[in-house]
Amino acid sequence: MTTTAQSGIVYLAGAGPGDPELLTLRVARLLMTADVVLPDDLVTDEVLALASPSALVIPVGKRCGQPRITQAGIHALMLEHADPQDGSPARSVLRLKSGDPLVFGRAAEEIAFLTDAGIPFEIVPGITAAFAVAAELKTPLTDRSSASKLIFATAHHAAPQPDKPARLELTPKWEGAFPPDATLVLYMPGRRFRLLADELIASGIDAHTPCIAVSNASTPQQHIHRTTLAALEDDAVGPAPVLMLIGHAIR
Amino acid sequence: MTTTAQSGIVYLAGAGPGDPELLTLRVARLLMTADVVLPDDLVTDEVLALASPSALVIPVGKRCGQPRITQAGIHALMLEHADPQDGSPARSVLRLKSGDPLVFGRAAEEIAFLTDAGIPFEIVPGITAAFAVAAELKTPLTDRSSASKLIFATAHHAAPQPDKPARLELTPKWEGAFPPDATLVLYMPGRRFRLLADELIASGIDAHTPCIAVSNASTPQQHIHRTTLAALEDDAVGPAPVLMLIGHAIR
Repeated sequence: MTTTAQSGIVYLAGAGPGDPELLTLRVARLLMTADVVLPDDLVTDEVLALASPSALVIPVGKRCGQPRITQAGIHALMLEHADPQDGSPARSVLRLKSGDPLVFGRAAEEIAFLTDAGIPFEIVPGITAAFAVAAELKTPLTDRSSASKLIFATAHHAAPQPDKPARLELTPKWEGAFPPDATLVLYMPGRRFRLLADELIASGIDAHTPCIAVSNASTPQQHIHRTTLAALEDDAVGPAPVLMLIGHAIR
Repeated sequence: MTTTAQSGIVYLAGAGPGDPELLTLRVARLLMTADVVLPDDLVTDEVLALASPSALVIPVGKRCGQPRITQAGIHALMLEHADPQDGSPARSVLRLKSGDPLVFGRAAEEIAFLTDAGIPFEIVPGITAAFAVAAELKTPLTDRSSASKLIFATAHHAAPQPDKPARLELTPKWEGAFPPDATLVLYMPGRRFRLLADELIASGIDAHTPCIAVSNASTPQQHIHRTTLAALEDDAVGPAPVLMLIGHAIR
C-alpha cells in the first residue's frame, strides 16, 4: 500500500475518535504528505496538527455556528484539487472523516461522486468511536455469555414543525423483539435521552439494561455517565458529540 | 496517553486486520518497545516484524496443528512477565489480538483475570476486519437510504456428536423479523456457507440480498467472492479466516 499521498487521488480516510495516537500509520503518513486536507467537523485540532505546514487545510464541517458547506461543495473541492479542469496541476486530497469513513459517514455520496467523475480514490479505515470508548471504559463489546451481537445504529430527530410536536425517529426501533443478547451502540443519539430510552424500552429492551453515555470521547473533555435505560435523564449527559452504549456486556 | 510500553503493565491491544499500515500509532509504538509480546494466531508476521529485536515473542494461538495454549496458560504468561512472583523484574507485556480486542476477542476473560490479579492494564483499540474489508471493497457499511444499522455477529458450529448430525448454531438468528435496513457482518462464519445462508433466509433476510465472502482479508492471499444469499455455495469461498458481509448497502 502507498503511504505517501499521490497527486490526483482522493483519500477518503478515517481520523479515528480524536486522539492522534489512534490514527493508523497509513492515515498519519497521508496527513503528513497530502497537499489538501478536507476535515469534517469532528476531526480534532490535535489530529490536524500533524498535517504538513504547506498543506491547504479546508474544514468542511459546521462549527461555531458557521454555515455548513454543502455536500455538493465538498464534491467541488475534491474535483478542484484532485482533477483541476483549468490545467493547473493535480494535487493529493485527504478527505478526513472522524471515526471510520464507512460507518455513519455519508461516504456513499462521496464514493458515487468520485466514481462518476472518474477521480481515482482510495478508502482508508479508522478507529470508530465505539471501540475507543470501550477501550477507555475497559469493557468488552461482545461477550460469549451475554452479547453475541454488536449493533451500531443512529437516531434521528425530525425538525419540529409549526403544527406538530418534535418527533423522534429512532432508527434502531425493531420489528419484533429486540435481540436480548446484543450490545447496542448509538451514534448521534440527539439530546432527548429520556424519550430515546422510552422508545428503546418500547422496542423490547429491558429497562434495567446498563447504559453508558460518553460525551466528547477520546478528548480531554470526555464525560462519562453510567446509568440504566430506566434511570437515563436528559440533563445528566454531557455535551455533543455523544455516544451511547447499551447492553449487559458493558458492566 | 503513554506510547512507550511501561514495566508491570499489560496492554491488551488490537493489531488490526493484518496490514501493518493499519496499526494505530499507539500500538506500533507499544510493539516497538514492549519486552514481551503475546500474539494471537491471526496476528500477521508483517505486524510482528515491528517488534523490538530484544522482545520475547510468544505466540499464544493455534497454528499448523500445534496444540492451542489454554486461556489459563495465557493468564499465567501475563502474570509471569508483568507481575513476577519470584522477585525478578516486572516487564511490559503486549497482548496482541487481531482486529479490535473488544470485538469477538474473548477479552472478557482476560480483563477479569487482570482485574482479579491486580495487574495494571490498558486496552488499545484496533481496526476491525469489517472496516478494512469495506475500505478495500470501497463499499459503505451504512447508507442513509438502505442501511441504518450495522450488525456484527458470529456463527458457531457445534461439534458433531456420534449420534447426531452436525448442527449449526447461528447466533445472529433473530426472534421476529430480521431488520431489513441492516448490514450484517459475520465473523468466524465457519465453513458450511450454504447452511448458513439458508438459516439467514429462514431468519427473514431476503434471499436476493448481496453477500460478499472475503478470505484472508488485508493480506496478499486475500480472496473475494461476491454473490447473493440464494447463490452462496460452500466451495466458492476461499480458506479461513473468512469474513462475510451481507446487505443491500454493499452493492
